Amino acid sequence: MRVAIVGASGAVGLELLALLAERRFPVSNLTAFSSPRSAGRELPFGTGSVRLEVLPDNGDLRADLVFSAAGGTLSTAQAWNWARHGATVIDNTSAWRLDERVPLVVPEVNPEALAGHQGVIANPNCSTIIALMALAPLHRAFGLQRATIATYQAVSGAGAAGITELRDQSRALLAAEGSPDGSHDDPALRPEKFQHVIAFNLFSHDSEIGADGYNDEERKLALESRKILSLPELAVSATCVRVPVFRAHSEAIHAEFSRAVSEDEARRVLSEAPGVRLVDDRAGNTFPMPSDASGQDDTLVGRIRADMSLPGAIALFVSGDQIRKGAALNSVQIAEALLAQGRLSA
Amino acid sequence: MRVAIVGASGAVGLELLALLAERRFPVSNLTAFSSPRSAGRELPFGTGSVRLEVLPDNGDLRADLVFSAAGGTLSTAQAWNWARHGATVIDNTSAWRLDERVPLVVPEVNPEALAGHQGVIANPNCSTIIALMALAPLHRAFGLQRATIATYQAVSGAGAAGITELRDQSRALLAAEGSPDGSHDDPALRPEKFQHVIAFNLFSHDSEIGADGYNDEERKLALESRKILSLPELAVSATCVRVPVFRAHSEAIHAEFSRAVSEDEARRVLSEAPGVRLVDDRAGNTFPMPSDASGQDDTLVGRIRADMSLPGAIALFVSGDQIRKGAALNSVQIAEALLAQGRLSA
Repeated sequence: MRVAIVGASGAVGLELLALLAERRFPVSNLTAFSSPRSAGRELPFGTGSVRLEVLPDNGDLRADLVFSAAGGTLSTAQAWNWARHGATVIDNTSAWRLDERVPLVVPEVNPEALAGHQGVIANPNCSTIIALMALAPLHRAFGLQRATIATYQAVSGAGAAGITELRDQSRALLAAEGSPDGSHDDPALRPEKFQHVIAFNLFSHDSEIGADGYNDEERKLALESRKILSLPELAVSATCVRVPVFRAHSEAIHAEFSRAVSEDEARRVLSEAPGVRLVDDRAGNTFPMPSDASGQDDTLVGRIRADMSLPGAIALFVSGDQIRKGAALNSVQIAEALLAQGRLSA
Repeated sequence: MRVAIVGASGAVGLELLALLAERRFPVSNLTAFSSPRSAGRELPFGTGSVRLEVLPDNGDLRADLVFSAAGGTLSTAQAWNWARHGATVIDNTSAWRLDERVPLVVPEVNPEALAGHQGVIANPNCSTIIALMALAPLHRAFGLQRATIATYQAVSGAGAAGITELRDQSRALLAAEGSPDGSHDDPALRPEKFQHVIAFNLFSHDSEIGADGYNDEERKLALESRKILSLPELAVSATCVRVPVFRAHSEAIHAEFSRAVSEDEARRVLSEAPGVRLVDDRAGNTFPMPSDASGQDDTLVGRIRADMSLPGAIALFVSGDQIRKGAALNSVQIAEALLAQGRLSA
């Protein structure tokens, strides 16, 4: 299988390289594309390395399978062009997620959606994937009707620059005299990637806000969940918040179903859900945390309890690695599902 | 007015000292009590200082007004004893909050509850106060029926030791080689105040968990809100989370009312609410943040929008200084309300 990664030197691109090797994906030839600025650099791949190349002008990536992780502008312009040259494109950007021709897939949730693909398949947004790893199995068992979600999102969602900014600002704040919350005038603390200081702070998600007051991240959570679950009327309201955590997202979720669900029923369903690991130790006060979710394939689910404000509803808390299951791992799993379904061959 | 502060050297005690001076509370004599370990130390008070003393054995604090901020065990044992010696006790612990004899007061919300006090008045929990600064005015206008709340709570809620632990762990993690999320074996990172690492991490609130899966912090939010709002049936479900922020709490809230409420109606009510400052700049993507709330008296309220998952419901986001409005400021405001109502005199 000839595989190409577009945006290979970014946070998601590097994780794709690691996962293809780690999961022994059948790669006969790997091509790694980057911006001209990075071209020529070598990146590790398995026991060897791969040299970054500039994208060809004609759209022929010399690949059967393309992972696109270079941003929405490039995918908007080129994804179908790459597909026309014979590649199956798994797009990790928001460019085509809501397009009717494009399956939007979490392999544990809706692998059957791959059947209709026309060359471009979309990887959902990270916060959607992590929420649905818990909500989809509950939906299948009980019929999801409404979910309210508050997120605690890592800076890795803004790429490597977000990670650097949290680290550098934290260092500067800790080095500064006086209260770490009070000394935001230091030029070393000036935000660049984000609009506001992220170190020891948090803020409403750094995406555009619509007339209804919801930002794009919140809108994605609602619209993508509807498409993936085939529930066009699903009621979802999210508050998306960036927190000073490096690479795993967490979400506090309240979910209402078409029938009353008990805590035990919810726990039983989630304990059998693929890709989910229950971390729900009340006696030990240990529940999903970003530090435990980082670097893991599974989405951690805990705090499973009856919603004491509404009989029959369920509250829970999830943490998942934003770069792995929230992006690169899910993309590789889509490729694996295509292979298993016989929809992808060299 | 003879004023005593019990627990004067803690995070809340120090803020009480600062606020009494800053707000020119009519203090004729100030006594500051601490543990024997700290006794003898001088703390700044206004333009002078006050020397820390050991609590007398007999319960006579030689004060007309006592602020108790030394922890629940001491307040449980001594609050009524101090009151019997003639003091009006404003208790900043959870010891007596749900006791029928004890008013539980946020002065902007239920100052009338002070009328029945019998010597001990309770200051609500920090996350309750900050939520109610927004929810109480909405309740008065529209009739609150249900609220779901996800918190983002600062380490200052665990006192000065929580602040130190976040600072020291952050320094150690940043100094460590490799990924800040991956190197939790360093002994410098061993949690002491909290059970889990807080630096660049978050976890379910560090309070005891009941059989229903809710922790004490979440239970307080529900039970205290019911008492303060005189709504014994109010439906509240919270998920309380500790985040790596120094001293302001934030909360994402979904609220349902006895009638449909529009975004504009909610904003109008909140714009006139005392102690509330709207920070709701969609064009500038600027909303309540801990960095802006820290050191402020007002509770910041924003992200006011129609809950897109339920017609007529409202979603919003609040940030408030946990030590000031969440504790010390609210206590001083209770004292000021007692004075204004003629219920406190030397």
